[in-house]
Amino acid sequence: MRFDLFYELAVPRFTGLTEREVYDHSLDEIALADSAGFDGVWLVEHHFFREYSHCPAPEVLFGAISQRTERLRIGHGVVLLPFNHPVRVAERIAALDIMSGGRMDVGVGRGVSPLEYEVFGGKMSESRARVDEGLEILRRAWADEPFSFDGQFWSFPEIDVVPKPLQTPHPPLWTAAVSPETFPMAAEQGLGVLAGPFKPLFMISEDRQHFVDRCHELGKDPADLGFGMTVGAVVLDDHERAREVAGTNIRWFYEQLLRLTAPVLEKGGEAYRYYREELGTLRALTGGTPSLEGLEAAGMVVAGDAEHAIEQLRGLASHGIDHVLCAVQAGGVPHADVLRSIELFGEEVIPALRGMRTGVEAPAAGRGRGRPDMRIFLRESANVTPELLFQAMPLSFRRDRADGLRALYRIDLAGEGGGTWWVDVADGSCVVTREHEGQSPDVRIRSDAETWVELAKGNRSRLGAVLRRRLRVKGDRRKAAQFARLFG
Amino acid sequence: MRFDLFYELAVPRFTGLTEREVYDHSLDEIALADSAGFDGVWLVEHHFFREYSHCPAPEVLFGAISQRTERLRIGHGVVLLPFNHPVRVAERIAALDIMSGGRMDVGVGRGVSPLEYEVFGGKMSESRARVDEGLEILRRAWADEPFSFDGQFWSFPEIDVVPKPLQTPHPPLWTAAVSPETFPMAAEQGLGVLAGPFKPLFMISEDRQHFVDRCHELGKDPADLGFGMTVGAVVLDDHERAREVAGTNIRWFYEQLLRLTAPVLEKGGEAYRYYREELGTLRALTGGTPSLEGLEAAGMVVAGDAEHAIEQLRGLASHGIDHVLCAVQAGGVPHADVLRSIELFGEEVIPALRGMRTGVEAPAAGRGRGRPDMRIFLRESANVTPELLFQAMPLSFRRDRADGLRALYRIDLAGEGGGTWWVDVADGSCVVTREHEGQSPDVRIRSDAETWVELAKGNRSRLGAVLRRRLRVKGDRRKAAQFARLFG
Repeated sequence: MRFDLFYELAVPRFTGLTEREVYDHSLDEIALADSAGFDGVWLVEHHFFREYSHCPAPEVLFGAISQRTERLRIGHGVVLLPFNHPVRVAERIAALDIMSGGRMDVGVGRGVSPLEYEVFGGKMSESRARVDEGLEILRRAWADEPFSFDGQFWSFPEIDVVPKPLQTPHPPLWTAAVSPETFPMAAEQGLGVLAGPFKPLFMISEDRQHFVDRCHELGKDPADLGFGMTVGAVVLDDHERAREVAGTNIRWFYEQLLRLTAPVLEKGGEAYRYYREELGTLRALTGGTPSLEGLEAAGMVVAGDAEHAIEQLRGLASHGIDHVLCAVQAGGVPHADVLRSIELFGEEVIPALRGMRTGVEAPAAGRGRGRPDMRIFLRESANVTPELLFQAMPLSFRRDRADGLRALYRIDLAGEGGGTWWVDVADGSCVVTREHEGQSPDVRIRSDAETWVELAKGNRSRLGAVLRRRLRVKGDRRKAAQFARLFG
Repeated sequence: MRFDLFYELAVPRFTGLTEREVYDHSLDEIALADSAGFDGVWLVEHHFFREYSHCPAPEVLFGAISQRTERLRIGHGVVLLPFNHPVRVAERIAALDIMSGGRMDVGVGRGVSPLEYEVFGGKMSESRARVDEGLEILRRAWADEPFSFDGQFWSFPEIDVVPKPLQTPHPPLWTAAVSPETFPMAAEQGLGVLAGPFKPLFMISEDRQHFVDRCHELGKDPADLGFGMTVGAVVLDDHERAREVAGTNIRWFYEQLLRLTAPVLEKGGEAYRYYREELGTLRALTGGTPSLEGLEAAGMVVAGDAEHAIEQLRGLASHGIDHVLCAVQAGGVPHADVLRSIELFGEEVIPALRGMRTGVEAPAAGRGRGRPDMRIFLRESANVTPELLFQAMPLSFRRDRADGLRALYRIDLAGEGGGTWWVDVADGSCVVTREHEGQSPDVRIRSDAETWVELAKGNRSRLGAVLRRRLRVKGDRRKAAQFARLFG
């Protein structure tokens, strides 16, 4: 496994920290990680996110890190390519690659903040095309020949960009990946994947499979490109202390992330459809305040003593995640705790996991084993309604279990928040609608809204509900039996 | 006096240096300067200037320097504000100010490369207005309050820029200054001045006086703002070796600078009128290859042993220059020589000059004393023609000696390159024309083209020329006697 750090430079008001303390602490922590055995460090680029992230100019920190570390790879996680001039980005990264002795990794992304586009220019609806054009310019600027460019967004006469990066042909490229279509695209474009930070493992493990499959189709080795997942991480000698810190700081981090990404759900348009329809649903389901247990079960947090952390990370590895970006300072985790986390990773966690085989090496291994599911998010939420649950069904749809299945389900729920929903499973996909003209369902399910929510949360058993007549199922028995297994 | 370093990160092909060597060497040199006693270091931002300057992204080097030094002030010399988004610049500098413990100096400028505008956007003709608007945004972004902006070039809704710089209200601001109108403007806007690098002392000392005068008119202390001048500097134990190195590397630096700034003379338009009409003339006069002696006499180079350097710098100080930016690596001066230069500055030059009073402290002192003049540029040039000399007259016009003078001179030169010129001195200004309707000259001068050029170079005396009948002067005696003194 590869172990990196991931920093957003949080300055939460409740911690009383100053910006200077956070910057100084973070540089000290990163310097420690260099000798402790970590492999890399990634810094975000976020603008105007007071408290959550005071890191709008990671490039200048990379300059500092290049002099404070000797081994760590240094990653742009990620540079917002739609509105940073790609030539300027190419120049900066080349200079950093030189100063770091060829240790740069370059993640690119389109960001999640409509405000950033309003300030820095460009249409958010064109974000993906802008990233693609930016990548083309980066590659040409890093090549030896002078070049001119006449693109959709950027055009310029012949230029001779200097300096050139040390790594040849250029530093490895990565992409932030949230939307499902990004994962196979990464394989096609030769980009490593940076998954998360707000995406649970049960969704990411599907995404990873698409990435790996597409790599294999193209004859590429996914391990050459890489697939990293960001997790909040607090590892301390005192297990309870670690969970307390994570319960405060890391939970705050995810809450803020959900809050700050809200505008993209409204304003992102078609290019961010996935955010609105799937992550938006997840946000609504959790009420914006996921529990530590929920985050942990979803593979998004590692919090506890070293033994616990090793167990958690083995779980991730069993789902193919062989590269984690540890957000050790997320939400303003106290400096002393971050330092100790880094030490414990170096002394115990990393040595225990360094050589282990993961799903990327053996793509299909472990798939589905102990797979976490969405119930963990729902259990503590007061927000769950049948409508939200049906919206969320495509998120947890187990394509791997639907092979060849063709079934139409009609669900009628009585009581407040109830109604009728149709779930149409065909060709490995799942569509939920409120109406369905002209067809009879294969299976008809009747229940009430309250029971349906409790079943979804796992607070009641289906058998008990049937026995107590709160759940009635009619129609094709085989298809009826498959229904629950389809949504893991 | 204040002593800074000035870097362009030259990678001249003839030196055989790699980009990595230049970056590594420069960082080592700057770290040495930190302990040797220098006060600051400035890095340029130039794009697409292969060999001359491989420094398009100084911000990432500042990050490195913030960790390699403890005392040095760190200066953007200068950030090209017309096409770097000012909010992005504000963010970067705030982060750097934090990491350096409040050591940033921020020079802004409009650049001299039409190509940079073609690539990064914006009209070069609007460069000054763009800088002004950019400065306003910088100041607001560094203030505590969120703000929105609706300007000529940049507009955006309310943003809360983080982080904030450590220095309050913000890091000192400076401006690159070449055009004469920039100097009083700097005083008005509260900006320090960075003069040069390609402008001789006899021009800069006039500029400085305008800056100082305007400061005093406004009740400001020019020393609070600062006035620095860039000079090429090679100081070695072996005087001859220093002059040899400077004669190779520093001369190359100035040659390249003249070559690379040529496009602005053609394409800069009205906003760069001064470059075309005055610096362009200077370039033509020197044939683009000024001699080391010429550069030294013009106060643009300090080259020799420590004793010689101290003498040279005393000369600058006597003209009010109390802050020098030493281009120690200009043109790829060998690393070992740069290191020794820095040591000798620290051991001998800086201690000898540190406490001396200069013209900024006593504005009028030393004015005109031993004032270098333009002849030194002309002496070794094969390019000098009477036409160029007349074009150059306004450059060397001594406004301070023209007080109250009103005189019209007619000069007729025989031979190849000869002709008739009129020099009209009135109200402290000087206008040269080829024709002058309806007036009789106060003084009429006859000579031949060859003699005129030799006189200008200082190779012949005026008295000798008169005695040998190569120079004849008729008309108002007092005004005739003043003619030579007017162009120093």
